[in-house]
Amino acid sequence: MAAELTTHELIARHRPTLDQALEAIRTRAYWSPHPEHPKAYGENGSLDAGAGKAAFDAVLGTRLDLGQPGTDDWVGGEVSPYGVELGVTYPHADIDVLLPAMKAGQGAWRDAGAETRAVVCLEILKRISDRTHEFAHAVMHTSGQAFMMAFQAGGPHAQDRGLEAVAYAYVEQVRTPDTAEWTKPQGKRDPLVLTKHFTPVPRGIALLIGCNTFPTWNGYPGLFASLATGNAVLVKPHPRAVLPLALTVQAAREVLAEAGFDPNLVALAAERPDEGIAKTLATRPEIRIIDYTGSTSFGDWLEANARQAQVYTEKAGVNTVIVDSTADYKGMLSNLAFSLSLYSGQMCTTPQNLLIPRDGIATDQGHKSFDEVTADLARSVDALLGDDARANALLGAIVNPDVKARLEAAAALGEVALASREVANPDFPDAVVRTPVIVKLDGAKPDAEAAYMSECFGPVSFAVAVDSAAGAVELLRRTVREKGAMTVGAYTTDEEVERAVQEVCLDEAAQLSLNLTGGVYVNQTAAFSDFHGSGGNPAANAALCDGAFVANRFRVVEVRREA
Amino acid sequence: MAAELTTHELIARHRPTLDQALEAIRTRAYWSPHPEHPKAYGENGSLDAGAGKAAFDAVLGTRLDLGQPGTDDWVGGEVSPYGVELGVTYPHADIDVLLPAMKAGQGAWRDAGAETRAVVCLEILKRISDRTHEFAHAVMHTSGQAFMMAFQAGGPHAQDRGLEAVAYAYVEQVRTPDTAEWTKPQGKRDPLVLTKHFTPVPRGIALLIGCNTFPTWNGYPGLFASLATGNAVLVKPHPRAVLPLALTVQAAREVLAEAGFDPNLVALAAERPDEGIAKTLATRPEIRIIDYTGSTSFGDWLEANARQAQVYTEKAGVNTVIVDSTADYKGMLSNLAFSLSLYSGQMCTTPQNLLIPRDGIATDQGHKSFDEVTADLARSVDALLGDDARANALLGAIVNPDVKARLEAAAALGEVALASREVANPDFPDAVVRTPVIVKLDGAKPDAEAAYMSECFGPVSFAVAVDSAAGAVELLRRTVREKGAMTVGAYTTDEEVERAVQEVCLDEAAQLSLNLTGGVYVNQTAAFSDFHGSGGNPAANAALCDGAFVANRFRVVEVRREA
Repeated sequence: MAAELTTHELIARHRPTLDQALEAIRTRAYWSPHPEHPKAYGENGSLDAGAGKAAFDAVLGTRLDLGQPGTDDWVGGEVSPYGVELGVTYPHADIDVLLPAMKAGQGAWRDAGAETRAVVCLEILKRISDRTHEFAHAVMHTSGQAFMMAFQAGGPHAQDRGLEAVAYAYVEQVRTPDTAEWTKPQGKRDPLVLTKHFTPVPRGIALLIGCNTFPTWNGYPGLFASLATGNAVLVKPHPRAVLPLALTVQAAREVLAEAGFDPNLVALAAERPDEGIAKTLATRPEIRIIDYTGSTSFGDWLEANARQAQVYTEKAGVNTVIVDSTADYKGMLSNLAFSLSLYSGQMCTTPQNLLIPRDGIATDQGHKSFDEVTADLARSVDALLGDDARANALLGAIVNPDVKARLEAAAALGEVALASREVANPDFPDAVVRTPVIVKLDGAKPDAEAAYMSECFGPVSFAVAVDSAAGAVELLRRTVREKGAMTVGAYTTDEEVERAVQEVCLDEAAQLSLNLTGGVYVNQTAAFSDFHGSGGNPAANAALCDGAFVANRFRVVEVRREA
Repeated sequence: MAAELTTHELIARHRPTLDQALEAIRTRAYWSPHPEHPKAYGENGSLDAGAGKAAFDAVLGTRLDLGQPGTDDWVGGEVSPYGVELGVTYPHADIDVLLPAMKAGQGAWRDAGAETRAVVCLEILKRISDRTHEFAHAVMHTSGQAFMMAFQAGGPHAQDRGLEAVAYAYVEQVRTPDTAEWTKPQGKRDPLVLTKHFTPVPRGIALLIGCNTFPTWNGYPGLFASLATGNAVLVKPHPRAVLPLALTVQAAREVLAEAGFDPNLVALAAERPDEGIAKTLATRPEIRIIDYTGSTSFGDWLEANARQAQVYTEKAGVNTVIVDSTADYKGMLSNLAFSLSLYSGQMCTTPQNLLIPRDGIATDQGHKSFDEVTADLARSVDALLGDDARANALLGAIVNPDVKARLEAAAALGEVALASREVANPDFPDAVVRTPVIVKLDGAKPDAEAAYMSECFGPVSFAVAVDSAAGAVELLRRTVREKGAMTVGAYTTDEEVERAVQEVCLDEAAQLSLNLTGGVYVNQTAAFSDFHGSGGNPAANAALCDGAFVANRFRVVEVRREA
């Protein structure tokens, strides 16, 4: 078919961005081509705030026809954590029709080569970027994130992670040259001479199993890594967060078709309530790669059962912050208060266990007892969230009833240092908005261990009294080893303690933030620079993004012949 | 401890070689620092033929004490396929003592960094290279390879594959810088500034499960990839091929100690007859990486059961050569005859199924019927192996009774185009030396399929009559998809057929050699240039060597703090 977008055009448009991304993953300095500020949108084809909102409103209550083959029904039923029924329906696929259709265009996609695939992916990301305002509403009304967070984390930050994956995928594929001349001397006889051709080939169809809380941010790395390495990608969104990924699939299909490729290289697999198609899809022989973010139990199931596929999982963990000592008590408290509050603690990177010596800590404001530290932290959270408007803007809404139930049960686990309170949302009266709870536990008591050694996903954290800094370090080691962690934080002015914490993190492969007191938080990572997870502890078997995340999504086939 | 070998010295000695290896894996042009000719050894500290033989003889009948902790017994019992009892005993380990001892030195090995680890590995390879003549005898008398093959494949070629793995491991680890300054603009406010440190960390202890036929060639990639990425490596050799890997462990321990590292970073796990310790070791929590070459059943078992580890397997496959047409009939026949004969077909890369149209093929010597092709090939093998001295030098010995039994049973599977014959070995009268058998099968007959669709490891190949080139291509596709293949060969002068074969190899991820008629054979691959296996079909889940082979043997831990 005649392409509206030629490869030449796409390379001219996107190669400079790709090159900058390649440079960024080498230096890991700050870089992003995707503006974080809502007002940066509205020119050069991007939707401004009003147009984005209008686009979102226009899709509500409609059938989102993606033009996919094998559609046998229309399904939907998302209800926003803010109380709005989205009313959008999506294609439900007969997978025996859809999967073969997805394979049909793979040969041409493979033959296009790594650079063309990369720039097609960058064009998809550009279309998504242009619709950032629209996506922000879609992410907000599926994840429950407050608008600004949905805008940034669901928009530019997610797009950054997608672009980062494309850059890693590209560089990995071009490590091996397309051709080589191989001449082996044979003493006095003629040398042996071979011509060799090397082609990166896809594994097959990749399956992306999306999550409820960060459908785009957690979805884009796998989606773009698989697509850029030549695989078709089937997107199975979380039933409560279909729209952001459906719009993504829409943009991808649009660009693929315009660039002369088969749009079925990217398709959506929405499901009926309680259909549970992830298990069926994950074990289909056509599915050779799976990316998953969600519960440990299903992640473990995938790793054990989807044996025909490469499986990349991000599961649960127990994130720890050691509070040993600080030279900036106020900065520490406000930094921690923000980390605990952002998106009501519904991030896989939110700290859960704050390990604090029961004898208290040294600070620039003198010695602070365990109770003083917890009380001061509670006050910091209160101060941060005292204003309802600001509280709503930071907390967002509770994403589902399970989180609410866990929050309500948490108060019974120990002495409450900070009680959760309801916050009214004037714009969305049905939204469930809650401030975080902080519960004090005694680390020496066996019955407390059941609480702090399990992930309690949501706005719940435990101030755990430990005997000493050394005890904190040992508990950190055991927690990461047994439960995994996406993040570790530590506050200490003691070089010995700092060294011990680092040693644990190196031994147990956990990502460490030290003494953050300013505007960077332990639960945030930046694409091109920070790794999200390590892939080396039970919380996740892969990191975003590194060579290992992309290198096994394709294989290299060599064809050699005598020259 | 004071190191006899300083890092500085090792870098000066080996960095140029490392750089050349890095360049070779980028260009994939011919390169090797390890001479193939036996006469190249004897200077600069390397053993010449006589000294190598003497060193081998000196170890026979001795206890090879590696100085390992936790040795609770001495075990051995290797009998050479050439009939010689080696009489060497090796340490048997109490793994509850050995494994913790192997972990003790990991912190220092990790902290040494990627470059130091690489040059230490290169020093180990240098010591092994110096002992190539000694290793040649050890490989010969465990694998049954003829001396020259044991010398080359077990010596320089194996060392090349080890070095290649070190190069890949090094480059993978230095993709991320040691440190980064990250400065994020904040409009009119001060920028956010972080200092980030990145450290490659090992997964834990790696387990190498060695094979009988190529203990060093198949063992070195995993061993050196794991060691170079910071892991300790436990080497569990095949009970019939302990010596080459025991000598390897000896060399590694020597160099590690001299360089100031804990020698227990590399250790041997020899076993009692029928002890079957591989299963026990493979599922120990300390074991986080496994490299395995051997049967499909145990490879599948490892993949299914060693869930705590990254598992790299090379298993069985069914290698196919399509014989469609040729412009060099004589060259094709002699090339194929050599491929079928080398090491009595006991290579994972030896062709098994020769797919030949039942109506014959076009050649530069006119049309040849199916029967003519098979008869001419039989004659070529006969001519190649007619002289007993040359036959012994090419065939080596049958490695074990199972191979002999399969060979003897093969003649009953169909019409014999070339019968196997016994060859006497004047030097080793007890050696079992056999020429290959070629059996004709009708690809259209369902009862023939059971034979040609299973791996028949050893000097057995099937001339399978197919209806057409298209039929051959389809059978190739089915064979690779269902049974896997380490190699595919094809002879054709028809562009359409060539394209179709290539398409199958790209679709099913198989490595293809086209129209080889000279001194390169389908069953041989060269390090730094050819991939061994693809990792994308059932014969192996990894390729030697690529980014995917090394990228997940370590993780990167980030420590970030405000600048």
